[in-house]
Amino acid sequence: MRQAGVNTVSLAIFSWGRIQPSEHEWDFDWLDCVIDKLGRGGIAVDLASATATAPMWLYESHPEVLPVESNGDIVNPGSRQSWRPTSPVFKRYALQLCSRLAERYRDNPYVTAWHINNEYGWNNRYDYSDDALKAFRIWCRQRYGSIDALNEAWGTAFWAQQVHSFEEVILPKHMGSDAMVNPSQQLDFERFGSDALKDFYKSERDTIERICPDKPCTTNFMVSTEQCSMDYADWSDEVDFVSNDHYFTAGRSHLDELLCSDALVDSLALGKPWYVMEHSTSAVQWKPLNSRKRAGELIRDAVAHVAMGADAINYFQWRQSSAGAEAFHSSMLPHAGADSKIFREVCELGEALKTLADAGLQGSVLEESHAAILFDADCEWATRCQTLPSTSLSHWHDVRTWYQAFLDSSSRADVVPLRADWTGYDTIVMPTMLLLSRQEADRIASFVHGGGRLVASYATGLADDRFHVALGGYPGLLRETLGVRGEEFNILGKLEGDPDDVGLSNGFTSRLWENVVTSVAQTARVLATYSGDAAVDWELDEVPAIVRNRYGAGSAYYIGCDLGRSDIAGFVDTELHDLVTAADNRVVHTRRRGAQADFDFYFNRSKDKATIHDVPGEAVFLYRADAVDSSAVYALDRSGVVVTASSR
Amino acid sequence: MRQAGVNTVSLAIFSWGRIQPSEHEWDFDWLDCVIDKLGRGGIAVDLASATATAPMWLYESHPEVLPVESNGDIVNPGSRQSWRPTSPVFKRYALQLCSRLAERYRDNPYVTAWHINNEYGWNNRYDYSDDALKAFRIWCRQRYGSIDALNEAWGTAFWAQQVHSFEEVILPKHMGSDAMVNPSQQLDFERFGSDALKDFYKSERDTIERICPDKPCTTNFMVSTEQCSMDYADWSDEVDFVSNDHYFTAGRSHLDELLCSDALVDSLALGKPWYVMEHSTSAVQWKPLNSRKRAGELIRDAVAHVAMGADAINYFQWRQSSAGAEAFHSSMLPHAGADSKIFREVCELGEALKTLADAGLQGSVLEESHAAILFDADCEWATRCQTLPSTSLSHWHDVRTWYQAFLDSSSRADVVPLRADWTGYDTIVMPTMLLLSRQEADRIASFVHGGGRLVASYATGLADDRFHVALGGYPGLLRETLGVRGEEFNILGKLEGDPDDVGLSNGFTSRLWENVVTSVAQTARVLATYSGDAAVDWELDEVPAIVRNRYGAGSAYYIGCDLGRSDIAGFVDTELHDLVTAADNRVVHTRRRGAQADFDFYFNRSKDKATIHDVPGEAVFLYRADAVDSSAVYALDRSGVVVTASSR
Amino acid sequence: MRQAGVNTVSLAIFSWGRIQPSEHEWDFDWLDCVIDKLGRGGIAVDLASATATAPMWLYESHPEVLPVESNGDIVNPGSRQSWRPTSPVFKRYALQLCSRLAERYRDNPYVTAWHINNEYGWNNRYDYSDDALKAFRIWCRQRYGSIDALNEAWGTAFWAQQVHSFEEVILPKHMGSDAMVNPSQQLDFERFGSDALKDFYKSERDTIERICPDKPCTTNFMVSTEQCSMDYADWSDEVDFVSNDHYFTAGRSHLDELLCSDALVDSLALGKPWYVMEHSTSAVQWKPLNSRKRAGELIRDAVAHVAMGADAINYFQWRQSSAGAEAFHSSMLPHAGADSKIFREVCELGEALKTLADAGLQGSVLEESHAAILFDADCEWATRCQTLPSTSLSHWHDVRTWYQAFLDSSSRADVVPLRADWTGYDTIVMPTMLLLSRQEADRIASFVHGGGRLVASYATGLADDRFHVALGGYPGLLRETLGVRGEEFNILGKLEGDPDDVGLSNGFTSRLWENVVTSVAQTARVLATYSGDAAVDWELDEVPAIVRNRYGAGSAYYIGCDLGRSDIAGFVDTELHDLVTAADNRVVHTRRRGAQADFDFYFNRSKDKATIHDVPGEAVFLYRADAVDSSAVYALDRSGVVVTASSR
Repeated sequence: MRQAGVNTVSLAIFSWGRIQPSEHEWDFDWLDCVIDKLGRGGIAVDLASATATAPMWLYESHPEVLPVESNGDIVNPGSRQSWRPTSPVFKRYALQLCSRLAERYRDNPYVTAWHINNEYGWNNRYDYSDDALKAFRIWCRQRYGSIDALNEAWGTAFWAQQVHSFEEVILPKHMGSDAMVNPSQQLDFERFGSDALKDFYKSERDTIERICPDKPCTTNFMVSTEQCSMDYADWSDEVDFVSNDHYFTAGRSHLDELLCSDALVDSLALGKPWYVMEHSTSAVQWKPLNSRKRAGELIRDAVAHVAMGADAINYFQWRQSSAGAEAFHSSMLPHAGADSKIFREVCELGEALKTLADAGLQGSVLEESHAAILFDADCEWATRCQTLPSTSLSHWHDVRTWYQAFLDSSSRADVVPLRADWTGYDTIVMPTMLLLSRQEADRIASFVHGGGRLVASYATGLADDRFHVALGGYPGLLRETLGVRGEEFNILGKLEGDPDDVGLSNGFTSRLWENVVTSVAQTARVLATYSGDAAVDWELDEVPAIVRNRYGAGSAYYIGCDLGRSDIAGFVDTELHDLVTAADNRVVHTRRRGAQADFDFYFNRSKDKATIHDVPGEAVFLYRADAVDSSAVYALDRSGVVVTASSR
Repeated sequence: MRQAGVNTVSLAIFSWGRIQPSEHEWDFDWLDCVIDKLGRGGIAVDLASATATAPMWLYESHPEVLPVESNGDIVNPGSRQSWRPTSPVFKRYALQLCSRLAERYRDNPYVTAWHINNEYGWNNRYDYSDDALKAFRIWCRQRYGSIDALNEAWGTAFWAQQVHSFEEVILPKHMGSDAMVNPSQQLDFERFGSDALKDFYKSERDTIERICPDKPCTTNFMVSTEQCSMDYADWSDEVDFVSNDHYFTAGRSHLDELLCSDALVDSLALGKPWYVMEHSTSAVQWKPLNSRKRAGELIRDAVAHVAMGADAINYFQWRQSSAGAEAFHSSMLPHAGADSKIFREVCELGEALKTLADAGLQGSVLEESHAAILFDADCEWATRCQTLPSTSLSHWHDVRTWYQAFLDSSSRADVVPLRADWTGYDTIVMPTMLLLSRQEADRIASFVHGGGRLVASYATGLADDRFHVALGGYPGLLRETLGVRGEEFNILGKLEGDPDDVGLSNGFTSRLWENVVTSVAQTARVLATYSGDAAVDWELDEVPAIVRNRYGAGSAYYIGCDLGRSDIAGFVDTELHDLVTAADNRVVHTRRRGAQADFDFYFNRSKDKATIHDVPGEAVFLYRADAVDSSAVYALDRSGVVVTASSR
Repeated sequence: MRQAGVNTVSLAIFSWGRIQPSEHEWDFDWLDCVIDKLGRGGIAVDLASATATAPMWLYESHPEVLPVESNGDIVNPGSRQSWRPTSPVFKRYALQLCSRLAERYRDNPYVTAWHINNEYGWNNRYDYSDDALKAFRIWCRQRYGSIDALNEAWGTAFWAQQVHSFEEVILPKHMGSDAMVNPSQQLDFERFGSDALKDFYKSERDTIERICPDKPCTTNFMVSTEQCSMDYADWSDEVDFVSNDHYFTAGRSHLDELLCSDALVDSLALGKPWYVMEHSTSAVQWKPLNSRKRAGELIRDAVAHVAMGADAINYFQWRQSSAGAEAFHSSMLPHAGADSKIFREVCELGEALKTLADAGLQGSVLEESHAAILFDADCEWATRCQTLPSTSLSHWHDVRTWYQAFLDSSSRADVVPLRADWTGYDTIVMPTMLLLSRQEADRIASFVHGGGRLVASYATGLADDRFHVALGGYPGLLRETLGVRGEEFNILGKLEGDPDDVGLSNGFTSRLWENVVTSVAQTARVLATYSGDAAVDWELDEVPAIVRNRYGAGSAYYIGCDLGRSDIAGFVDTELHDLVTAADNRVVHTRRRGAQADFDFYFNRSKDKATIHDVPGEAVFLYRADAVDSSAVYALDRSGVVVTASSR
């Protein structure tokens, strides 16, 4: 570890069974020994509360802690998170463990932070047990106060779903082949699930903090493109520092996706540096096909996380296990041993991170962009609803597409939670933001009215935060701000004899969803309409597709249909040209601002060699890159990185 | 509603929870008020028995009414039909509700009909509960009388399935990975399920009729191409008038499919006009992708239903709900409000229907065609069996393909239940009519022998109504009538190195199934054989594919393989040319015959403009169509409609 | 039957319900009568223990014998094998039946063998019931002795899976969406399942043998490409003669697959002739699409089984049933009756088999090839593991691909269980042999060191028989023998912008998996590297792909990537050219050696006519083939067969 420059280890995450071999037996000796050995070697310990996986004896004696699936199937032990977040029995055992650990290690100098549980919700995000039912009824009572308010919010007049007391409220369990769950109920069940896990987290944290008040607590979030199922914007002020697990998505967009996920994590971190708690040196083992990282990506990815605001770079796992379900997951010290490309690169990374730290990077913060793409967990959950005009929506995936389109346009946006304060940005983008509370809709209107620039896409602003559709024409909640009114949605499918896509007058193409706009405000200007044979066939000819509205001192763009990444990039190039910051979209640039210096990071996004000019400051770290001459010009190979520092 | 010309409303379908808020509490005031308001406004009420969705308190106190899936999973509340048709507990509650409603509204002048339950079977068509088991055993005892008869019918000698008393009879539940259910048992389970729901219907109806004998009862059937799971031919004489729910299938065949479904509904209506109880003004919300209707289709579809025999045109739903699982289902009064294209078209339709009514249309009946395509629920269930030579069969889908092929050939067929009297037709078609009782087989032979014309397709007449294969050569039950004898089936698949389709000597193509005919009768003439390289490869070269047999005074066509729609149309053009009634297959024509006048309906099936000539009578209604000159010539745009009346 | 030359019948396989109509009632009369009738007609009876399908009354009174699926679903009665192998209740009833049958028929001269149960494991291979749990704990105790040994073997330190007593051991049940079962535990569960069924078999056999010691016992194995789920190498010395059920895989490779399956069966038979217990005259009925056999294949397939060592050719089923789940399964006497192509061919086959028997074939044994492809059930189970670098592996499918490649190269290999003695072969091939015990790895090293030739493919030798990855570089267990060391796996996927396949310098192509070899031994020679644009893109350029190592007196080939069948054939042609035995790969040849004579079998594998020369001996049987002239030349049509005999 010293050879690799390791200075922190997350420890004991799945070790409950070893710490408490049976109900009345505790064994800390081995853990004392490991912590001591690490500490004496100069390596700090981020100690787990160790509650993610319960011991087998607990499941044997208390099977009533196991989660239940929507159809009644039991989630059996053998993996992670095989417990109900709402089980009082499980909580009692878990908090007892937290107490014991806190008591034993509160004064241990080598333990510098607490790692509460692990990846909350990985396998118990949705639990349909009796414990969950009981807790859901309490949650509903707290949210709504009266049963009439719940009936109103859920629209239970439809399909005889009226409940006359909170004791009649049910979970959205499996309903047979007719899978049409009440969307408002489902949305609340999503919120409840996130809250139930957050409450569990807080119980663990509070138990530990009561005993050991001076060490910071975190828990590892899971923000990556295929996974953002918790309402982390609601969690982030409960942790002392944000940490995130990020696993790469193989393929061309690997780096773009990483930057997009990190952009959200950096917003969640509320202006402070954050931790990469887990990522992989190379392949994982839980996908159907597990690609390795290409040469250079180990270091490139790690430094990219740093460029996006991370101050710590951790990996799962140190030593590649020879047995168990994750034996084929890559590690810092692989099956092949220390004499291996991966370990050599890990050591090289250790030096690189030390170089950056020595240059004073730590504590600096990511410089904001001018544009913010808004993200909201409610909207992500809502777009997965089964009774929408189309079941092909994903708010979070559309966030990524917009993020990449900005990169393709040589610009860069931040990703910001809807409920955060984004009023300082010039421009906000709302991709597939299906739900908006009246308050949020007003806030957006004010932002534009006060001079801001808004871009709203199709399927944005249709319903309120109870999932009630706003009436009078779509998008009901933003109709005035956007200056458009629509009446129907045109949904394309693979239908015999019908066109699969529809063209726009500006050359763009829509493949999924077109809002049938029937009127635009006098303050609005139509920038593109549907056009061409398919538009005629679908009766969309001359229907407004892209509209710009003047609203107060600001302007609001309305994009009434889905667009591919390159069309969105075209839109950014044309309409948001002031956001374009670089000459060459092959290189992405971020800046971290520190007390003493600014750090500029450059990454080659392409497969080809790319050259950058006018680079400020002095080179701190070059990887697969060379200074071309002395005058601030660098050439970057595939996966190349340049970091420079400029004193302030 | 008055603006839209609404004169009937189906009411309270999902309102049980509001009528009976708890076990001993009843609230009819709101319903009195709604009925009164409608009635005073001139709008009649088709009042529901309101039993489709039970209140939450009933599920909370009696979870034993919930249906059970084949693997034991519970069908939980929250949707429609979450109850066992065979539950005595549920029936007690439901009939109590029926009594209360009947007592309260028997003399209400505004309530003109009873809408019993709703879409029976939508979510409880198959129930594997203990109640179902008990009822199935009684059903089997009634059907078979002795256990020996059941053993014989089910062929239980195979796989040790003998039962020695009706108490040993089991439901065809989940059997693990070995999914080979006894086909005879499964067939009886399908029949039982249809009967159990019919019995429930009859109980509701009888309860109401006992109290309120003078108002007609109906229940809405579900006949559409993707759904015809009940044996409606067995239900239709239990309703006072037939009503049907029809949801459109987006794509090129939209109108054809509507006509085909309606053709069956009109046959079920036994010579009386019937009701469209539900259809949509535009998109639904329960498919993965929900296309809207194109301009004109709202009115075109409604009038097409009228053209096929409907005397009432109802929609689900009046006002588009802002919440709940069907919020995105289109309605008469959409989210956008009265100032909307849909509401304007709804109003236009109201006027159109009034025009037709004023012209005396109501009570007239659809004129029969010369050809009948036979349909049988048993055959549809049988073609879904998992242990046939191919699992790609569907009798009902093949009915549609034949129906469309007739339209493509400028002719039109009726769709008639097998058990109806079809002896008045010149020609009957039996597509994939896998099962035939000996009696039905004899009736068909007599029909042909007496001069009728029969067309039988592949996989027709293979087994009897117990699902016993008739021996001696295929198709055992029609071998003599058709004059062919086959020994095996050639099933094509996507096999490495093997041809995917087989050509016929007349240019047709088979892609799925070819009967290996080994001899034909002396009275038979082979019209086409398999031919070409693929036929040689599959050893079908010169095997008879299409055969015409003289049988008594009639003739029987045998089509020994699956054919696509255009080949079937080619067959109709060539062999059934006498059925061709129009010059141009772009326009479909039907006639309703009334006491005073005949009404001719013309619809443009194509995307292009079409012209019709020699149209009889006076124009009553033109839609997207114009009279070209005074001499009975009209030009129809896409979705165009012409209706004329001729005095008798 | 006499007309068809039938001389043995397997009887009463699914007749328990008829033999024991209720718990205390037995009826053997019908069975006596059938046996007597067959026996007097000269037909011997292979009498079933009749335990495969229990009677309905048993399930009604003892539902606790039903198997349970991983998610807790019950496997309900109605099919075959709906019982827990570990149920003491079921075993009591089954052994009682065995006793009764053995007592009644021990002296019956017409009963010549016992057919124990049927296709063990078809529907109860995996059982997660409480009985299974109890038995699994006993099995684990027997295997490991101490709980520490089990913890070590399963690597339970990972994910807190430590167990502190055998009473804490669990089954790998459904764990929710997180499906990452411990691979070592899963492997043992596979072994346990095979053992539990073997123990059941042994109980039945022992019960019968105690009473009736002089009649041989068998049970029908299920070796075919889609099915080889039991560890039959561990079963085969428990049967008095091996019998196998083989159902053909339609398509071009039909004959190749049959030969490959039979090659393994012949190895299992331990040098004795064996039985085809079930195959089909034509189509089956349990696939989605059920192709018939082409003309000639009925006889060709039967004789091919004989050519591979079978001394008896049985079919399921004699008379095609008119009802039940297998009504559309082909038979010897089809629905069409005796006047049918199938029955005529069955009779022709009867004569052919008599001709071969008269020529003295029976008792002769298949001549060994020079090469053995090794197969191991553990490896097949291991390659299905969900946490490997790729989930697209199958050891058994790769065995078939190698087998076919040998045929394509005009050579032929045997298929031999890993644990058998294969040291007499010149060459052994190990395709995707993921797991190897240290002992087996040593045995292989010795074989090569002593002069043998080894071919090892990608994903071979990675882990030991506990599923522990061998460290120090891949393939840890064969690194020295093969002279290569790899560090990672390059897994290809369908990734946006990335190449789907990688070329080799010798023109071969890899599509799935490439080992990233980082060094080769000095004794090794690199025969091919990765090469071309895709190799550069994936950073595999110049990485060794195919390597030959001198090791002691022998040589070891390492093929570090997946290859298609034609590339493997190219490898055989080039590197193993000494194994090529024929001039024309369209004809496959085998030889059975008897006491008096050798029998040479030739089959046309292709669709075209093929000619063979220098055929030894005298023609015994020609089918779709002709002697061209008197000098040992024959022409074979598609599906043609030539059998000759040479006196020794």
